[in-house]
Amino acid sequence: MKLPLGYRYATVYAGIRKARKDDLSLIVSERPANAAAVYTSNVVAAAPIQLARKHMAASKGIVKALLINAGNANCATRTGMAVATSTSKAVAAALGCPVEQIIPSSTGVIGVELDPSKITEAMPALVAALHTDGFQSVADAIMTTDLVSKTAFATIGKVSIAGMTKGSGMIHPNMATTLGYVMTDAVIPVAALRAMLKRAIGVSYNSISVDGDQSTNDIVVAMANGASGVKPDLTKFEKALTQVLQSLARQIAKDGEGAKKLVTIDIKGAKSHGEAMKLARSIANSPLVKTAIAGADPNWGRIICAAGYSGVKFDPLKVDILFQGVAVCKSGLAADFDEDALKARLDAPEVDIRFVLKGAGKGVARFWTCDFTEGYILINGSYRT
Amino acid sequence: MKLPLGYRYATVYAGIRKARKDDLSLIVSERPANAAAVYTSNVVAAAPIQLARKHMAASKGIVKALLINAGNANCATRTGMAVATSTSKAVAAALGCPVEQIIPSSTGVIGVELDPSKITEAMPALVAALHTDGFQSVADAIMTTDLVSKTAFATIGKVSIAGMTKGSGMIHPNMATTLGYVMTDAVIPVAALRAMLKRAIGVSYNSISVDGDQSTNDIVVAMANGASGVKPDLTKFEKALTQVLQSLARQIAKDGEGAKKLVTIDIKGAKSHGEAMKLARSIANSPLVKTAIAGADPNWGRIICAAGYSGVKFDPLKVDILFQGVAVCKSGLAADFDEDALKARLDAPEVDIRFVLKGAGKGVARFWTCDFTEGYILINGSYRT
Repeated sequence: MKLPLGYRYATVYAGIRKARKDDLSLIVSERPANAAAVYTSNVVAAAPIQLARKHMAASKGIVKALLINAGNANCATRTGMAVATSTSKAVAAALGCPVEQIIPSSTGVIGVELDPSKITEAMPALVAALHTDGFQSVADAIMTTDLVSKTAFATIGKVSIAGMTKGSGMIHPNMATTLGYVMTDAVIPVAALRAMLKRAIGVSYNSISVDGDQSTNDIVVAMANGASGVKPDLTKFEKALTQVLQSLARQIAKDGEGAKKLVTIDIKGAKSHGEAMKLARSIANSPLVKTAIAGADPNWGRIICAAGYSGVKFDPLKVDILFQGVAVCKSGLAADFDEDALKARLDAPEVDIRFVLKGAGKGVARFWTCDFTEGYILINGSYRT
Repeated sequence: MKLPLGYRYATVYAGIRKARKDDLSLIVSERPANAAAVYTSNVVAAAPIQLARKHMAASKGIVKALLINAGNANCATRTGMAVATSTSKAVAAALGCPVEQIIPSSTGVIGVELDPSKITEAMPALVAALHTDGFQSVADAIMTTDLVSKTAFATIGKVSIAGMTKGSGMIHPNMATTLGYVMTDAVIPVAALRAMLKRAIGVSYNSISVDGDQSTNDIVVAMANGASGVKPDLTKFEKALTQVLQSLARQIAKDGEGAKKLVTIDIKGAKSHGEAMKLARSIANSPLVKTAIAGADPNWGRIICAAGYSGVKFDPLKVDILFQGVAVCKSGLAADFDEDALKARLDAPEVDIRFVLKGAGKGVARFWTCDFTEGYILINGSYRT
């Protein structure tokens, strides 16, 4: 693991969350970086999301720093936009850059006013703490209900990519805000970075049942500051970027609230990629499928039923379903398999489900989710209070 | 409570489910009844659903008897249609009526062959047990994960309506099969009954987040045998039928797997009824909303967020949200309210959520769901095995 050149990181405890754990983070690129971002599609977008969009447009994708707080979403409040603006200005003043080069993001409770003085008063300490080695401290400070911090790294020759994310699995991952930050020292034009990020998000963050039901605060930002001086082969770079984003997304699915297992769902033979995604999402979102996996139960009836209400038309008699590579349903009917042996194999940290439509088409999709345990309820029944 | 005239009911234990609890039921109308039914829209429809549709079409809506088994869904099996057909024939032979006047339905596990001899061998005992007083015994025998039996009654002058249902709440109520049977002794033509049932289902069973993600086996049947000799006022009759179906649907929502609370969601001021339904369904299906209610937490941030990804466009600054009649969000912002007092009021068996869009339109919807507790996981993690 080699961190990309030219970035510094800092965290402090600014008193935004109750627990005394660092809650304010800063990621700074020594030279302003080319950047791209994807944002939540929720109608209710938090103030920092609105301001991030505005800054990214005004700066034409040039970003100096990311300001991130945990503990308060700065969403649905009277002062939301004023708080996002004044705290971004404080960062810009401290770093001596235009305010539109600052991208704010927030995660935490909705509808509670965020006191901006907590952030502005912490600014001198935050800037003083900036350090090239602070990457992991930021990955830790952005966590909310996450049990583990989530990072991923890649190198392409002399170029490095480092990503971090927060977000906790989920039934629907809505509302459990997803934040993601990817830094590279490659030389990449803004337009190319934007196109690559969009494609990579499709097969990573948008393949963990996120899109369509998104939080008010979701954002993923990619920064390329060119500090390595190397223009990488874009095909290779995109592959590495995609791997980093897929690793981060899988870690989110695996750290599902209360989850014990990472579930990979592969759809084959659908009429199109779009239909394969619909089938995958319907299976991945089914609480009855997810509870069966928690119980190590190869209950393919729940899988074919979830596929059946996905909105995709198919012939049930042309469906094969496999758990851990073992066929449990062939042509829509129960297959012969050793149930005890398979149950033992489902007591594993990773579970694979394959859903194959025979003779329909070439549409495929890969999707990640988690199992669904009592822990989810315990976490979410008492999160706010 | 007065049962409609001219119906007899019976149940026996036929050995279909493991637990020694009656699992085979018969409802017989002395004279063949005018009938209507609504069925699951799942692509994977169980054999009894397919046969019920066929029989209803062939008999032009004339039904003599309903045959119902619990413990096996008779779905996705090699012999499914043969089993549904041979067992329906056995009923027709025992009652001396055409086979197309028999409507079969099943609930239970998917993908396990159902041995028809268990049903045919039980037929003499089942028919011998038919009795006008057996209504409640059938309501008990159709239960699976239900904690309580569900019945509802109405009278319009000399006409009676009696309904029973099974189905257990849910996150999505998919796969937890919903069966419903409504009997009346009114004189109602088939076409009128069909139209009234369709409208009443829209504001009852399809307002508990069922439609769109339905089980392989869902069916609701209404029978009107005319035994009272009375042609009721159709407006009054439809109102009573709707009340019976709404009561049954609410009981399903209330008996949600592991649920402790019935949640009523009222949407006001949407652009259309369709948009109001979308908003209601998105809020009702949000696991984060449902866990908050389990925790007696007036977390309106989760409500507005779920509305925000419903697919309906709205201005967040024109939203009011009320819990138990208390405004917690006014014009998209936190309202002043006594949090401790409201939390105490949310520790109730029934919780009301009102979501009001100001100035958008006149679209309203009422939706029922349940809270979401650890119990759901415990029930569904070990249901099949």
